[in-house]
Amino acid sequence: MTSLARAQRSLADPSVRHPLWPPLTAGCPVTSTGEVAYPLEVDYDYDAVPADLFARPAAHGLERWAPLLPPLAAPGLGEGNTPLVALADGVWVKDESRNPTWSHKDRLNRVAVSAAVASGARGIVVSSSGNHGAAAAAYAARAGLPCVVFTSPQAPPAVASHLRAYGATVLAVPYASVRPLMRRIVGELGYQSVSSVTDSAHTGHPFGPEGYKTIAYEIALALGRAPAAVHVPVGYGELLFGVAKGFQELARLGVTSAVPRMYGVEPAAAGALTEALRTGRPAARVPVGPTAAYAIDCEVNSYRGVLAVRATGGAARTVTEDQFASAREELARQGIWCEVSSAAGLAGLRAHGPDPAGEDGPVVCVVTSSGYKDVATGRDPVVAADADRETVRALLER
Amino acid sequence: MTSLARAQRSLADPSVRHPLWPPLTAGCPVTSTGEVAYPLEVDYDYDAVPADLFARPAAHGLERWAPLLPPLAAPGLGEGNTPLVALADGVWVKDESRNPTWSHKDRLNRVAVSAAVASGARGIVVSSSGNHGAAAAAYAARAGLPCVVFTSPQAPPAVASHLRAYGATVLAVPYASVRPLMRRIVGELGYQSVSSVTDSAHTGHPFGPEGYKTIAYEIALALGRAPAAVHVPVGYGELLFGVAKGFQELARLGVTSAVPRMYGVEPAAAGALTEALRTGRPAARVPVGPTAAYAIDCEVNSYRGVLAVRATGGAARTVTEDQFASAREELARQGIWCEVSSAAGLAGLRAHGPDPAGEDGPVVCVVTSSGYKDVATGRDPVVAADADRETVRALLER
Repeated sequence: MTSLARAQRSLADPSVRHPLWPPLTAGCPVTSTGEVAYPLEVDYDYDAVPADLFARPAAHGLERWAPLLPPLAAPGLGEGNTPLVALADGVWVKDESRNPTWSHKDRLNRVAVSAAVASGARGIVVSSSGNHGAAAAAYAARAGLPCVVFTSPQAPPAVASHLRAYGATVLAVPYASVRPLMRRIVGELGYQSVSSVTDSAHTGHPFGPEGYKTIAYEIALALGRAPAAVHVPVGYGELLFGVAKGFQELARLGVTSAVPRMYGVEPAAAGALTEALRTGRPAARVPVGPTAAYAIDCEVNSYRGVLAVRATGGAARTVTEDQFASAREELARQGIWCEVSSAAGLAGLRAHGPDPAGEDGPVVCVVTSSGYKDVATGRDPVVAADADRETVRALLER
Repeated sequence: MTSLARAQRSLADPSVRHPLWPPLTAGCPVTSTGEVAYPLEVDYDYDAVPADLFARPAAHGLERWAPLLPPLAAPGLGEGNTPLVALADGVWVKDESRNPTWSHKDRLNRVAVSAAVASGARGIVVSSSGNHGAAAAAYAARAGLPCVVFTSPQAPPAVASHLRAYGATVLAVPYASVRPLMRRIVGELGYQSVSSVTDSAHTGHPFGPEGYKTIAYEIALALGRAPAAVHVPVGYGELLFGVAKGFQELARLGVTSAVPRMYGVEPAAAGALTEALRTGRPAARVPVGPTAAYAIDCEVNSYRGVLAVRATGGAARTVTEDQFASAREELARQGIWCEVSSAAGLAGLRAHGPDPAGEDGPVVCVVTSSGYKDVATGRDPVVAADADRETVRALLER
């Protein structure tokens, strides 16, 4: 199946179109302002979508959805095709830890690394505290491209092992140096960045979020309809935007009859999307407080998140550290051990309840990554805790 | 779909049958000897298998294969339905890290915890250095049963975090105390063990390996035929046996025309199956040397492995630490970061080559678990290594 991608389109003004190549990773050159380098998205020849595209069974690998993605020039790892798992009250969990590098970021990186391969980039550069870097490094390795990962000295030690295993060059440099260095690597070495390279609000790669659309396709295929609401963790909002766009496409193509309300959930310690929506601006900058949800503690939002919430009648929500912990524990007691940040969707649903419009169908929370990626993982001693010993003694002596 | 499981059958003598319930976790009471507590397997009413069972698409959750499994009384987590990923030379990797707790053990535990639920057990007890314990704890939590995990003080610290997240009681006790304590927990508390409780060669749970049959079903469905050879890591040989049985069933039911040669690969530091086959005994005990493949460093084998190799014309093979490392690196450079033990199948294939009979079709290596489970993971510092810094400096200054 061939890609039907035809153009890039400014998110600030959909009538502003650019050719599909090269990917405009620094934002739209026409509509951007001093404040916001507006992101772009990909437009398709929707009239040419094969009539049976959504009638075929789900399968591993984004090639399953090739017509509605940019060209997949980089080899895949069987990404996607993750399960929906039911919680006790019927809420569905879309378990994205079941991807090749155990997070949703594999969907974005299959597409973004493909863009680099197709545009003749000499390597991949990425800035990430964990999941994004691991996925970029894996797809770069598989495509035979070198990969440079800028990470934080606070990143979990296991993540460094993970990144280095793929042969990536892993650099912990001060935050202020990251983007200037990335731009040099792009400009002087001909690498392509799969992270945002602008100093304004988050711009990101125009092709990347397209990969997340496949989460919406899979959910609709599994449920036989669109859900009533979808709750997702929000860092820069690429996942929120991608899933919303996927559902919008399904409705446009007549596969489903409605678009779910999209809820983007942020740590209370870093609520940039919430602030942007509150103030009616395309992007806001907020101070970031301490949070265990290190994968989504972003000081700026992307305009993508604003669009997704507005277009679907959803909302941005924030959750406290206690609410994160509580949602993470609920998931673990149901057999799903996730990264703290990954529990944001469920934490938002449990803390704020179903929305006032009421739920007129299934509710889905996207869980993005595994508990192995957390900073605190591995800090417990393996030796039996006293409480454990007491539990068994009490059991055997009663 | 209803289970067609009808009876337990001794692996020492298939004519010795027992009722399906209760699961005979201490081995066959009729055929066992002082040396070997012979394991049992499950027999089915094969004549009643629905004609279209293998015509339907793959799906998450072992219920997809319910007719050929014992009753699935415990709720699932969407286990199985893992992808086949191609290496550069066309060898297929069955990526079992894509399961709910990121290893193949989820397939076994869905079935074994179901047996506990169906027989009214009050809890689950398991002995494991990692993957098996995590899977047992997750399925026990989901079923609402308490779980006690005996683990080793040498287990990776991240694994302790993993086990505790599900609410399991985690005990590190001296190796010699494990089985006596497990038997007490079974006898006095009414728990069911999903690990071997006998002091003889490995006996194991009679239902557990049935879960691994679904790996064979999925491979055959994905390839449209049986492969020529399958290479799997061997600890106690439950995976080897289960996959072999799955392919034998497919041939018996006329779904495929041949059974692949099954290769069981052990660390050179612990080659009990190799020794049993060499000496023609049902089970051997060997000294265990140091190895990074901690998940499969077993001092005894199970008779299951002997049967699987003999019935399929395969072999047991051993690999050195260097061969493990080399296979693990090959996989990582193709985007698949696995636990050292998990690389055994590919390590055996690369070290010993295709077998003398030649390969008359696809070759599959089963990769069982993620690199996050390794002892060495997380030991690297996050700070940039000097080599990494030099790489980027050299790139930017040339």
